[in-house]
Amino acid sequence: MRSKRLQEAAERTYVLVFDKGEEVIAGLEAFAREEGLSGSAFTGIGALRRLTPGYFDADRKDYLRIPIDEQVEVVSLVGNVAIDDGAPALHVHIVVAKRDGAAYGGHLLDAEVWPTLEIVLNEQPGYLQRRTDRETGLALLAP
Amino acid sequence: MRSKRLQEAAERTYVLVFDKGEEVIAGLEAFAREEGLSGSAFTGIGALRRLTPGYFDADRKDYLRIPIDEQVEVVSLVGNVAIDDGAPALHVHIVVAKRDGAAYGGHLLDAEVWPTLEIVLNEQPGYLQRRTDRETGLALLAP
Amino acid sequence: MRSKRLQEAAERTYVLVFDKGEEVIAGLEAFAREEGLSGSAFTGIGALRRLTPGYFDADRKDYLRIPIDEQVEVVSLVGNVAIDDGAPALHVHIVVAKRDGAAYGGHLLDAEVWPTLEIVLNEQPGYLQRRTDRETGLALLAP
Repeated sequence: MRSKRLQEAAERTYVLVFDKGEEVIAGLEAFAREEGLSGSAFTGIGALRRLTPGYFDADRKDYLRIPIDEQVEVVSLVGNVAIDDGAPALHVHIVVAKRDGAAYGGHLLDAEVWPTLEIVLNEQPGYLQRRTDRETGLALLAP
Repeated sequence: MRSKRLQEAAERTYVLVFDKGEEVIAGLEAFAREEGLSGSAFTGIGALRRLTPGYFDADRKDYLRIPIDEQVEVVSLVGNVAIDDGAPALHVHIVVAKRDGAAYGGHLLDAEVWPTLEIVLNEQPGYLQRRTDRETGLALLAP
Repeated sequence: MRSKRLQEAAERTYVLVFDKGEEVIAGLEAFAREEGLSGSAFTGIGALRRLTPGYFDADRKDYLRIPIDEQVEVVSLVGNVAIDDGAPALHVHIVVAKRDGAAYGGHLLDAEVWPTLEIVLNEQPGYLQRRTDRETGLALLAP
């Protein structure tokens, strides 16, 4: 994944471009650690050759995996970065469209890019914190 | 709903976090009034335990209600705030994913959060105005 | 299409409002040329009376067209503007919801607005470049 800082002011804006075969979550996590992100929001578009969206199953308190093993358009990717237990933590949701245009989505667990994924990320001067919620076990934003 | 202003510069950025059981539209409307928002754009992700997206029926000139009474992931929420008749008015569209990953959406009429909804909102120094369109009865943006 | 610059600072923010019957891609391309956009990201919501999303067919190296000839809600529109061969080039993906709420999407090839489409666009001080990828024939972002 390559990146470029578009803005040097108080709010920093980055564009991140993933190449063929790159893993989205791993790439974003590495970028967040390297840049020391602590409060970001991002959107993206592109295409993938496979992905696993998740659905939070309230009874099991875990994500149900919904593997999609085909080429799809990424029609929306929305996410944020906050600090959880001292390190940047990602939260990414995705919508993809299959060959017939039908849209599927969920909480993004993993995804492999082909041929590109373009993300624009705004890092705020502020700081966002996550804290574990007892009922669900999820790390929820605690502003 | 809790909120935190992330940026103090000309463009103000807020993060809004909804808690379990909170109503999205009512919470956003209250926030827009309290903060005096007059020209904002926002995106969000999270999950809901029920919602009503709407579809604008051109013949009836009203929204057809599409109730979804199950736990869903909010895979995209995009909206704006403008001034209509002197007060802040919301326009929110949503995409949700069900347990099998299938995506549904529409103009958001109401929604109940579970367990969280995370919104990042940018309030611009400018001002956006809505005016009622005679043909449809809708309050459209009039820049 | 009408537009208003919301912010005069280093990052420029515009709101673009499309009227009934206007073509989305042609309108965005004209706006990008007139304003000399060279590195923008945008999101939008609204409604359309027809559109053609595309799906990139890796074997044919071309977009498969998926015409949707009915009134739909635009539940998410995400895109960017970069420079390709000296001129601003658009990349737009869309998700729409039909009368029953079911969501469809893809790479946006063409779309006709009814009654409105509201886009918020951030033009960065930086510059984004596209270069043609030999394997796919696509102009990919090259930061």
